[in-house]
Amino acid sequence: MSFIKIPVKGMNDFLPQEMRLREFVINKIKETYQSFGFNIIETPCLEHIENLCSKQGGENEKLIFKVLKRGEKLSIDHIDNENDLVDMGLRYDLTVPLSRYYANNMAKLPSPFKALQIGNVWRAERPQKGRFRQFVQCDIDILGEKSNLAEIELMQATTTLLTKIGFDGFKIRINDRRILKAMVEYAKLPLEDSDKIFIILDKMDKIGKEGVKSELLNNGYDKTAVDRYMNLFDDAPFANSTNAYFEKVAVKLENQEVLDNLDQIIDNVTKLSCGKFTICFDPTLVRGMSYYTGPIFEIGMDGFNGSVAGGGRYDNMVEKYANINVPACGFSIGFERIISILLEKDHHLLDHEKKRVAMVIDKNTPSSDLAKILDEANKMREDGKIVLVVYKSKNFKFQKERLLEDGFSDIIF
Amino acid sequence: MSFIKIPVKGMNDFLPQEMRLREFVINKIKETYQSFGFNIIETPCLEHIENLCSKQGGENEKLIFKVLKRGEKLSIDHIDNENDLVDMGLRYDLTVPLSRYYANNMAKLPSPFKALQIGNVWRAERPQKGRFRQFVQCDIDILGEKSNLAEIELMQATTTLLTKIGFDGFKIRINDRRILKAMVEYAKLPLEDSDKIFIILDKMDKIGKEGVKSELLNNGYDKTAVDRYMNLFDDAPFANSTNAYFEKVAVKLENQEVLDNLDQIIDNVTKLSCGKFTICFDPTLVRGMSYYTGPIFEIGMDGFNGSVAGGGRYDNMVEKYANINVPACGFSIGFERIISILLEKDHHLLDHEKKRVAMVIDKNTPSSDLAKILDEANKMREDGKIVLVVYKSKNFKFQKERLLEDGFSDIIF
Repeated sequence: MSFIKIPVKGMNDFLPQEMRLREFVINKIKETYQSFGFNIIETPCLEHIENLCSKQGGENEKLIFKVLKRGEKLSIDHIDNENDLVDMGLRYDLTVPLSRYYANNMAKLPSPFKALQIGNVWRAERPQKGRFRQFVQCDIDILGEKSNLAEIELMQATTTLLTKIGFDGFKIRINDRRILKAMVEYAKLPLEDSDKIFIILDKMDKIGKEGVKSELLNNGYDKTAVDRYMNLFDDAPFANSTNAYFEKVAVKLENQEVLDNLDQIIDNVTKLSCGKFTICFDPTLVRGMSYYTGPIFEIGMDGFNGSVAGGGRYDNMVEKYANINVPACGFSIGFERIISILLEKDHHLLDHEKKRVAMVIDKNTPSSDLAKILDEANKMREDGKIVLVVYKSKNFKFQKERLLEDGFSDIIF
Repeated sequence: MSFIKIPVKGMNDFLPQEMRLREFVINKIKETYQSFGFNIIETPCLEHIENLCSKQGGENEKLIFKVLKRGEKLSIDHIDNENDLVDMGLRYDLTVPLSRYYANNMAKLPSPFKALQIGNVWRAERPQKGRFRQFVQCDIDILGEKSNLAEIELMQATTTLLTKIGFDGFKIRINDRRILKAMVEYAKLPLEDSDKIFIILDKMDKIGKEGVKSELLNNGYDKTAVDRYMNLFDDAPFANSTNAYFEKVAVKLENQEVLDNLDQIIDNVTKLSCGKFTICFDPTLVRGMSYYTGPIFEIGMDGFNGSVAGGGRYDNMVEKYANINVPACGFSIGFERIISILLEKDHHLLDHEKKRVAMVIDKNTPSSDLAKILDEANKMREDGKIVLVVYKSKNFKFQKERLLEDGFSDIIF
């Protein structure tokens, strides 16, 4: 029989040491968001294939692990295409399940509903460094709150969390989908091409202003319009006021209440920051998912590429399941990104774990003495210690080294 | 487009209230076993189909959710049978992944290795009350410890846990696979039929001694042998000493060291129980899985059918992956069973959660005041409270009722 020792391609066995860090971070996430009144929820890892392939998930829909039908429902004699073979798939994100969950359970949930979901998702991507086919996502969402209290609380909670796990000096960038569109409209670029233009704009940090400009021109857009558009992007891209930014680039957009809304968020979050992090308007921030309808935001860290968290408002998503309009705003924490940064960083998070004691007992201890020793160990556990009881091995020097390595700094006999 | 609101068949959306209980129990499990030096580990939910279909899993292998091959590997033109279509499956238990994990990572793990795994498993069973197609298993295993310190510590830790979640008066029953076989041999029933005979014996608590006897006779076994076998089962089936039990039924089995081993376990666990629970030898205890090689045990609760935890020694399992013999002993906690008992019981576990405060603010609060209010809320959170900030709704009476229902006993303005 052929047993295979390694995990399936692109997925991980987590060793105890890394698990301790993952557990530490997950506990901090739960503790922090629960203290803000978020409810931990759980949905099945499997979803109806119809929900997963509903065009909400963009490119991710190509990466679904699909589950074979079972029993009588599976007929391998008449197969036209692979969709005849499957009825479910492993979820590729937590947003589809959340929308379905809310629609299904709305009547039993508080309003507004603050949800925290931490769970595995699966994507059949080509495995590469730091990218896995099973990974943990961590989503925090507020459903039913149309005011910017949702955005502000999401940022307050998330920055509180990041501080608790030892991060500082991070930077929140914020924009609004409606501002992005207003800028396209103002420049007289074709509004129906917005998503295409945003994809080019999104490359600003990689290819620079000149790069974006020439890519737009290469796509055949009118030079005057492109110039008008590029003039909207100041050379110092970050501003601590949206209104001030557009005054500076000397443009009056039509969406005054959208600008004011962003500035209210920036003001409140700045006040809450106590100087520990910054928040600023960034007109080049796009974020990929097309379902966003309002403010969008991302948190980055100096010295580490990419974002550690990102999110935005998506007021029309839940309606597709629930048939009523439910305002919604969410933040997704890059859990695996945070873990990989912590593994790189010289963090001391686990130093504050419980004291670890190893009780080494003689191989020849008579069975009648065991209970007394084990009872003593339990008393130390009640005092908040981690106590390991092990028989002394022949090679004690090696055993001792190994125990120290595993954090058992206190070895008693 | 057809969105489906309900979860896939036989799987659950967990509401916040039930999640709080599930989280509470999971935290107690982690806290307790970690204090005994168990390491939390995690394996992928997907496993190689070869490992899942290796005949270790018995009936469960018929219930696997199989995952369709992807890309070029999937050819739907030449299908002989469904195995051509799949390369992975969702795990149906945590024992197969643990054995693979240990074989794969042995060199990096402490010895003995104490592992705690909590994770979802999937079985395509016909859905029925209390039985789900995705459910949480919780396995605790000690690999590399051949002495009964493993069994005793597993029982000490598990009874400590059950006490912490408010259970008492529970009963551990213990037997040994080798005693079960010795009894078949002693009775001169065919030893090669052991597994078949054990399945009949396992029905003792349902069909009684007479029922077992007539079923054995109906299966064509020799009457003298069946009588000899039935004489081994005392009418008062539970004994607090294995040796005493066999003296009472006046039988001398050949496996003296096996009997002594069980009695050492019983003695030590009795001493550790402080009268809060009992442990006894039960010659009718079988446990389903054929991979057990030594002591087997189960914990039951008065007033609730079935067991809340069960396990045993399986010394040959890991060898199939690792090519070296590794003694192993494990306990599986019936997590979903425990949750359903707690949901039935009038438990007060969540009473000790953090204090929940709702801060109700006026709809017309100017944005410039928000930060001050939110900062105040965060100060209360630092004091260990859960603080929810909500706008006062038009129907405050309803809002208040709902807040109280969700445990926000303290409502401030």
